Amino acid sequence: MNKNSSDIMALAPKTSNKRETVCIFGTGDFGRALGHKLIQSGYPVVFGSRSTRPSSLIPKDAEVLSHAEAAQKAAIIIIAIQREHYNFLTSLEEVLRGKVLVDISNNLKINQYPESNAKYLAQLVPSARVVKAFNTVSAWALQSGTLDASRQVFVCGDDMEAKQMVMDIVRALGLTPVDQGSLLAAQEIENYPLQLFPMWKFPIFLSLGLTTFFFFYCLIRDVIYPYVYENTDYSFFLAISIPNRICPILALILLALVYLPGVLAAIIQLYRGTKYSRFPDWLDKWMLCRKQLGLVALAFAFLHVFYTLVIPIRYYVRWRTENTIISQALNNKTNPFNNTNGWLSDSYVALGILGFFLFVLLGITSLPSVSNNVNWREFRFVQSKLGYVTLILCTAHTLVYGGNRFLSPSSYRWYLPDAYILSLIVPCIVLVVKFVLIFPCLDKQLTRIRQGWERNPQYSE
Amino acid sequence: MNKNSSDIMALAPKTSNKRETVCIFGTGDFGRALGHKLIQSGYPVVFGSRSTRPSSLIPKDAEVLSHAEAAQKAAIIIIAIQREHYNFLTSLEEVLRGKVLVDISNNLKINQYPESNAKYLAQLVPSARVVKAFNTVSAWALQSGTLDASRQVFVCGDDMEAKQMVMDIVRALGLTPVDQGSLLAAQEIENYPLQLFPMWKFPIFLSLGLTTFFFFYCLIRDVIYPYVYENTDYSFFLAISIPNRICPILALILLALVYLPGVLAAIIQLYRGTKYSRFPDWLDKWMLCRKQLGLVALAFAFLHVFYTLVIPIRYYVRWRTENTIISQALNNKTNPFNNTNGWLSDSYVALGILGFFLFVLLGITSLPSVSNNVNWREFRFVQSKLGYVTLILCTAHTLVYGGNRFLSPSSYRWYLPDAYILSLIVPCIVLVVKFVLIFPCLDKQLTRIRQGWERNPQYSE
Amino acid sequence: MNKNSSDIMALAPKTSNKRETVCIFGTGDFGRALGHKLIQSGYPVVFGSRSTRPSSLIPKDAEVLSHAEAAQKAAIIIIAIQREHYNFLTSLEEVLRGKVLVDISNNLKINQYPESNAKYLAQLVPSARVVKAFNTVSAWALQSGTLDASRQVFVCGDDMEAKQMVMDIVRALGLTPVDQGSLLAAQEIENYPLQLFPMWKFPIFLSLGLTTFFFFYCLIRDVIYPYVYENTDYSFFLAISIPNRICPILALILLALVYLPGVLAAIIQLYRGTKYSRFPDWLDKWMLCRKQLGLVALAFAFLHVFYTLVIPIRYYVRWRTENTIISQALNNKTNPFNNTNGWLSDSYVALGILGFFLFVLLGITSLPSVSNNVNWREFRFVQSKLGYVTLILCTAHTLVYGGNRFLSPSSYRWYLPDAYILSLIVPCIVLVVKFVLIFPCLDKQLTRIRQGWERNPQYSE
Repeated sequence: MNKNSSDIMALAPKTSNKRETVCIFGTGDFGRALGHKLIQSGYPVVFGSRSTRPSSLIPKDAEVLSHAEAAQKAAIIIIAIQREHYNFLTSLEEVLRGKVLVDISNNLKINQYPESNAKYLAQLVPSARVVKAFNTVSAWALQSGTLDASRQVFVCGDDMEAKQMVMDIVRALGLTPVDQGSLLAAQEIENYPLQLFPMWKFPIFLSLGLTTFFFFYCLIRDVIYPYVYENTDYSFFLAISIPNRICPILALILLALVYLPGVLAAIIQLYRGTKYSRFPDWLDKWMLCRKQLGLVALAFAFLHVFYTLVIPIRYYVRWRTENTIISQALNNKTNPFNNTNGWLSDSYVALGILGFFLFVLLGITSLPSVSNNVNWREFRFVQSKLGYVTLILCTAHTLVYGGNRFLSPSSYRWYLPDAYILSLIVPCIVLVVKFVLIFPCLDKQLTRIRQGWERNPQYSE
Repeated sequence: MNKNSSDIMALAPKTSNKRETVCIFGTGDFGRALGHKLIQSGYPVVFGSRSTRPSSLIPKDAEVLSHAEAAQKAAIIIIAIQREHYNFLTSLEEVLRGKVLVDISNNLKINQYPESNAKYLAQLVPSARVVKAFNTVSAWALQSGTLDASRQVFVCGDDMEAKQMVMDIVRALGLTPVDQGSLLAAQEIENYPLQLFPMWKFPIFLSLGLTTFFFFYCLIRDVIYPYVYENTDYSFFLAISIPNRICPILALILLALVYLPGVLAAIIQLYRGTKYSRFPDWLDKWMLCRKQLGLVALAFAFLHVFYTLVIPIRYYVRWRTENTIISQALNNKTNPFNNTNGWLSDSYVALGILGFFLFVLLGITSLPSVSNNVNWREFRFVQSKLGYVTLILCTAHTLVYGGNRFLSPSSYRWYLPDAYILSLIVPCIVLVVKFVLIFPCLDKQLTRIRQGWERNPQYSE
Repeated sequence: MNKNSSDIMALAPKTSNKRETVCIFGTGDFGRALGHKLIQSGYPVVFGSRSTRPSSLIPKDAEVLSHAEAAQKAAIIIIAIQREHYNFLTSLEEVLRGKVLVDISNNLKINQYPESNAKYLAQLVPSARVVKAFNTVSAWALQSGTLDASRQVFVCGDDMEAKQMVMDIVRALGLTPVDQGSLLAAQEIENYPLQLFPMWKFPIFLSLGLTTFFFFYCLIRDVIYPYVYENTDYSFFLAISIPNRICPILALILLALVYLPGVLAAIIQLYRGTKYSRFPDWLDKWMLCRKQLGLVALAFAFLHVFYTLVIPIRYYVRWRTENTIISQALNNKTNPFNNTNGWLSDSYVALGILGFFLFVLLGITSLPSVSNNVNWREFRFVQSKLGYVTLILCTAHTLVYGGNRFLSPSSYRWYLPDAYILSLIVPCIVLVVKFVLIFPCLDKQLTRIRQGWERNPQYSE
């Protein structure tokens, strides 16, 4: 860095409040939007364009010159041109020597070209100093000034001064520059704005599939069956009762699926006797979206909690309570208190509350700002120890909810067991296998493997 | 940067644990507090003062010298003096040559002076390297060591080495330096500690005004009216019933007001046929505080949820239920189940729960650490798509809540409709206009305008 | 910095996509894991080892050479060796001249050695440029690629270019480098991964102690007493009723304990007449964990809210309600509505909801990403003003809950008052003292003291 500090001194008279001129190549939408914003922030702006006729589209205070003339007027040149038209820049090589070229281009799909646009630009004009920036900002947002989303502008480049100059402009526009290092990072920065929740796809499709399955399962058991056999219309169960069956089931299954890959990985490592061979691809992918799986599970748990808490407010429930009481009163009958039921009802609810509490805690620690503030040991403690306690509490909650109805024949309708019984399969498997894995003999070996020991060294990849 | 690396080598023997001496000009409160803290962190401290008599106020381990003598002892001089007294520094020009001057001053009001204090200092002593820092830290917090608030210290300056030296001191004091770029940023940094939730003022005053209005509206309808006509004392409604009418109304109106400016902006753009003319000032300001409006709306929704969930616990509700049941039992009367009521009650509650769930999701994505981790497309998806779904759900929740009572003459008291009917006006307008705007013909034109097309190019500003 | 830019130009041909070779000294677990990861990210890796026989443990694509040979091949050498074996590096002094040595070591306990490992390394090989990095990352996480926890890698070092080179590698591995300044920071970085929620210990042990005490207190009053005197089995109270007594009590006491040290500090300062003398050690420590105390209190409040909201769902409560109604119906008796009870019940619940709402708000503002976005004035406003309002609301909630039962003799069992009465002691003391402290005469003096005035200058430390 800093090989041309005399150069920079000439370009950037930073000690005065006057801003240095910025040149923009290209008068397309983003170029104009950026020009407007730069002028608002006090920068003289000059556009470089093929046609130098002043166009009404271009901000009034900006000059429009030929590319070569415009480039000579400024130390920083923002290239607001499509990558396909970059090659004309080679003819300007002499003018661009030592200038800071800011590549703001985006692609239409991820990894569209073998090298990043910024790298391509640097290869075309090797004498210039290329900086990647601004591609993560929307032109519309820049124009309207309503940057509610991230104000972060990722900046990368091989020349430190060039990067500093661009970062100063970013700050002057009211945005937050984030230094991403050398130009190698450009590829990633260019892919960044193209993605739409990549890690969320699998958890969301999985939960949509499971929701559909359990929806029809419950529909058959809870609405169609009584309609056929008792001729009662429980269609209004679709609004709350059935969602409140689906939500806890999905929350429990998805939570168990968060911990299943860890258990599978441990089994694979024990079997192979090494940690240095890669896991199967599906397992790697699964492990990478555990956080998202857990958060979707938390969303279902949240819905379950509120669907449950409104129970006493529902018209159906109030009507049923009233009718029960009135008919008992008319029959002069009182129920004695059943201590077992008291215990079952209270402990099932208490387990649920504690499980939900820990679940919310896990969710909070997965917030980026919180997880950045805990070290690896603390994170493992929360996500692994507390995570398993949550899974145990939620499984116990479901088991006690079943209580003495559990597996009783009367709860089968058309040979279909209650839906919550299905939801117990995955969590119980995970907990049993985990329980086996923490037996000292297995645990010791696993720990040794994870510390780098290998049972069978030639197995190593 | 780095033009005087020999200089810096002399100043900062960084490879030894010994800290370099720091000089503080001024023995006021902040200077002393900083001195204490520096001494605690292992820095030799020398104070520069007009009177060099050792004062009991000054930390024991610190030396007190004349300004010139003190300045000669250190490479870094912290200027803990009011801006009004800076001009005596011109006489020390020779001594201060090449030194790092740290401007820590604050002003009493925003933009008090035409240039920032740091810039003013740099103009007074052009041969020194000025760095702005520490002004966002409270002396009291520094003293007591209880920095619960942000530990961030904004640092800016034109000289990289000087900034690095100051940032090292900041880190040594246990604070987090945040590089804000060149000295141009000083103005903003000096304004920063003076503001008190600037973006929250409008949302909070607006919601206070609306709360007052709806409070008296509900008071008249729900407490005074029955008192006058039925002579019943419902004054205890003030505690829960009336707040639980006001909260959902405000949540819905404020949520609609989050989306209204976007709709208005679209209409203005369609009418003008360009995106390059500025919106009216009030619309710009409104758009900038949409996030805050939304969060205030979420607060009201949160209160509404809990006010609603406690309903069955309230003495009044339990008393009413008991009395209804007892009188029915005594009259030997049972109610048949009304399927429509079952549907209405359950779907109104379910819509509310789903709306609240998405609302909380929107709130979570507006946390800085979360919104920094999503790109522009993802943020737009959540805040625009999910936001409208939330608005639709909440509006539907209110409509179904009204159910068959909606606009029935018996719900008018003193010609005043139920308050929730008033709350539907804004959201319904927003939803209807938005619905019109997504008609293909309008949507296409709007998209073209937002991509830079202009119907009437000479209109451009 | 930058004294050897010609050197760096030779080392890092950054403008090509080819990565520079990285050398790793040591073939232990972390060295191998890092080697794997580097190779995956496209870096040629060469291991320096005593035995240069290619071992099956070492990644296939890596070369294994003697230390000296390996070091010559790369500009960056990662020292994956225990600190105890560092001294052999002195013999390589010539080869290591100007190289970047990356110290990744960790210790077994906090402050194990007088100087940090990185500093020790820098002293051993003064001609090399030492950078501390990677010690906060777990080898296991690096290996499996499942870095759910913080991706932050703290980097520090005295040489800017060396630090930049290491930070580029960190970014290439998909991690986030965080510049912590000069090598002085190494000590703190080495201690970082060793701690396990250090600030949480006191709040958690305190709340465990209090929970145990109140658990037995309530057990005696609410389960054993009725068992002895009325021979009724309320053992199922253990699941919900007793936790729902303990939670609000702990929430209130812990919240009051958040504000008690501030009040004590004010008294001490008023008494001493200065702010420049240190507080007793216990008070300092107490003040430093106030945030954690508050969050534990919030957790208890959260549990209390949900334990309360499920009340109407509980079998016991439903049974009791039914029985009361039936017996009243059978006795032909109706209760008149009691307006005072309506007021008491509703206002106690409303105060609780408002208190919980503000409590959640306080919790949200203590999220790092939120508190970093508010300045000192805003933080003080929220944490101090809103905090006291929360305490007042929660105390009032408890007082009104007591209502007319408060201190009535019938609520004593075995001379033990209701547990909630005990919980009022600390908050009432805090509120009363705070109320006295905001009397103008005391408040003025306190403000003067906090601005640096001293009643008795020679008292100063």
